[in-house]
Amino acid sequence: MRQIVAEDLEYLAVGAAILGTGGGGDPFIGKLMAQQAIVEEGPVTLLDPEELDDDALVLPTAMMGAPTVMIEKVPEGMEAVRALRAAERRLGQKADATCPIECGGVNSQIPFVVAARARIPVVDGDGMGRAFPELQMETFHVYGLSGTPAVVADERGAIVTLETPDNVQLEWLARGVTIRMGGHSHLVDYPMSGADFKRTAVRGTVSMAMAIGKAVVTAASRGVNPIEAICEATQDTLYGRAIPLFEGKVVDVERRTREGFAVGRAVIHGLGRYRGSELVIRFQNENLVAVQDGEVIASVPDLISVLDHETGFAITTERIRYGQRVTVLGLPTPEIMRTEAALRVWGPRAFGYDIEFVPLERRFRDYYQRYGVPNEKQKYLTA
Amino acid sequence: MRQIVAEDLEYLAVGAAILGTGGGGDPFIGKLMAQQAIVEEGPVTLLDPEELDDDALVLPTAMMGAPTVMIEKVPEGMEAVRALRAAERRLGQKADATCPIECGGVNSQIPFVVAARARIPVVDGDGMGRAFPELQMETFHVYGLSGTPAVVADERGAIVTLETPDNVQLEWLARGVTIRMGGHSHLVDYPMSGADFKRTAVRGTVSMAMAIGKAVVTAASRGVNPIEAICEATQDTLYGRAIPLFEGKVVDVERRTREGFAVGRAVIHGLGRYRGSELVIRFQNENLVAVQDGEVIASVPDLISVLDHETGFAITTERIRYGQRVTVLGLPTPEIMRTEAALRVWGPRAFGYDIEFVPLERRFRDYYQRYGVPNEKQKYLTA
Repeated sequence: MRQIVAEDLEYLAVGAAILGTGGGGDPFIGKLMAQQAIVEEGPVTLLDPEELDDDALVLPTAMMGAPTVMIEKVPEGMEAVRALRAAERRLGQKADATCPIECGGVNSQIPFVVAARARIPVVDGDGMGRAFPELQMETFHVYGLSGTPAVVADERGAIVTLETPDNVQLEWLARGVTIRMGGHSHLVDYPMSGADFKRTAVRGTVSMAMAIGKAVVTAASRGVNPIEAICEATQDTLYGRAIPLFEGKVVDVERRTREGFAVGRAVIHGLGRYRGSELVIRFQNENLVAVQDGEVIASVPDLISVLDHETGFAITTERIRYGQRVTVLGLPTPEIMRTEAALRVWGPRAFGYDIEFVPLERRFRDYYQRYGVPNEKQKYLTA
Repeated sequence: MRQIVAEDLEYLAVGAAILGTGGGGDPFIGKLMAQQAIVEEGPVTLLDPEELDDDALVLPTAMMGAPTVMIEKVPEGMEAVRALRAAERRLGQKADATCPIECGGVNSQIPFVVAARARIPVVDGDGMGRAFPELQMETFHVYGLSGTPAVVADERGAIVTLETPDNVQLEWLARGVTIRMGGHSHLVDYPMSGADFKRTAVRGTVSMAMAIGKAVVTAASRGVNPIEAICEATQDTLYGRAIPLFEGKVVDVERRTREGFAVGRAVIHGLGRYRGSELVIRFQNENLVAVQDGEVIASVPDLISVLDHETGFAITTERIRYGQRVTVLGLPTPEIMRTEAALRVWGPRAFGYDIEFVPLERRFRDYYQRYGVPNEKQKYLTA
């Protein structure tokens, strides 16, 4: 248990943008909303999952829709709280805690808005351990929880409560409602018990995002390279150490909007020890696959983040452009994201790439033999 | 109070198709569903509005979406009952009765499905007194009721509960959900008290539709002209007597589907005493305006129905076609549909026609002086 103050949310924003792997939305407005809520209501308690009662009610909260819309249609601030209240009313029970559904991008912040306003804690964990575009792409779905009753709310006071036995239909209906609410909304889904959270969530992602963000932000004052700082900050986590995959200059970007997604690819020409080599990153909101000189070197659900070479700050797929000097970082995803059931939902094939998922620890065994991996990932170091 | 049996629903289907003024959907599948429910569960009580307690809870029930879809995606049968149960749960109160939101077309039947299954009565009245395409086109909206909490349900078990202070947004969101449910859904909206029903509903429309239908169906065996039978059946109602406007042959139909509506016009060349004259009917799902030789002779919210000349059965705007021999009937709408507030929602201008609404009783004063009008319509007979 720890108390989260406004400054922590600065770090969370920077770290969550890196876990956003190019997507998840710029956390800036979400951060301002959460900081204002904390300034007005006081600090928020961040609970370790083990501190949560098994029969506690956890209501995950998030924003849904196009983050680009949020910049012009600014949230009113209480949407997610109204969604929480409507879900409580439907369930006949008060929420004991909230949590992110995705800890990448803007959705790392929304639970802090809700937690401050409703005076409940945030549990340290989420349903993706990164960012993904759809509501069924959550560990909560993969491990058998119902996404509903779910609630979608807008800034004008509309509240839509969805119930369906099919989590894919939940995504379909909630997306339709969100579009008709003007392109973005606030959301409660996958209401669950504390026991369910412990069984299905990716743990520790909120505090890890804060630690990554703090490492980046304070790197310059500590005289540390920010990329190196990220690698160190991830060393002792569930994920395992981040690995620099490539360095270079963005020489080409193709991007188009298809069915509400930013789909495209970025081409990076190598610099330094990567000179003469080319990396292509394919994305759909998030970076999905990295291909070096024709060979796949990383893919979903492992995290592929494009960072500013100087500052270590994440560059989203909307903002990547010609001439940027970047470092591409890989971050192995936790094992809960790599089961057969999980890969069916968000492995490369779920996004239309006919390739096997190969974990970063196996592809870059030398690196991980040098630095070590979490216990449950030891299997990747042997042949 | 009277008991409605399966045979009454035959009459209701025929009469409601006439009140549907070309739209509202073919009642056939709705009728089968309602008849099956009555055969299995027993007759349904039809309550006069005055028999309803002021503090009773009335939950109107309906189908939403394209009736054309319903023919291929047949309802499972309990959708509207699930919607009713969800609304009851949200309101914390059991429904004492249901009613139609529109008594034209298929939606005249849905409340009988619900009433039989849930063992509650149907109240004799509705929110349109005819058919209209959108949820805010209800007297319940015009006279200040909230459309929500509303519930939309599909045949797969999905339940969507909508709450918004804005009835136009209710239409927008419910339409979006309905589209994503595959094109049609079942609905509860405008939950209201008995007192609200008495204040805002168009009364007696269910029994009137049955009377019209019975008059048409039994005309041949009684040796009566079916058109004449309709005129007689409407004589002593809130509407006033129907008036034959035109007879002829359909010579041209233009129809296209725009934003989910069937939009177009039908051209009818006169026969008999109308020989040498031409009637153009413009429609958007429902018949909106009738223009004889360049002069408007009838418009919304008065009812314009195109009937088979021989049988008196209604011809919908999807089925009207070259060569049909038709009689066009006008039916004056009740006064509750003609207030300034009401005409803003469904007068000719609400559908894009820059014309004044002129009541049929004023336009055809001779006819109505001959046959008489309801008391509250006496004003139209004086100059």
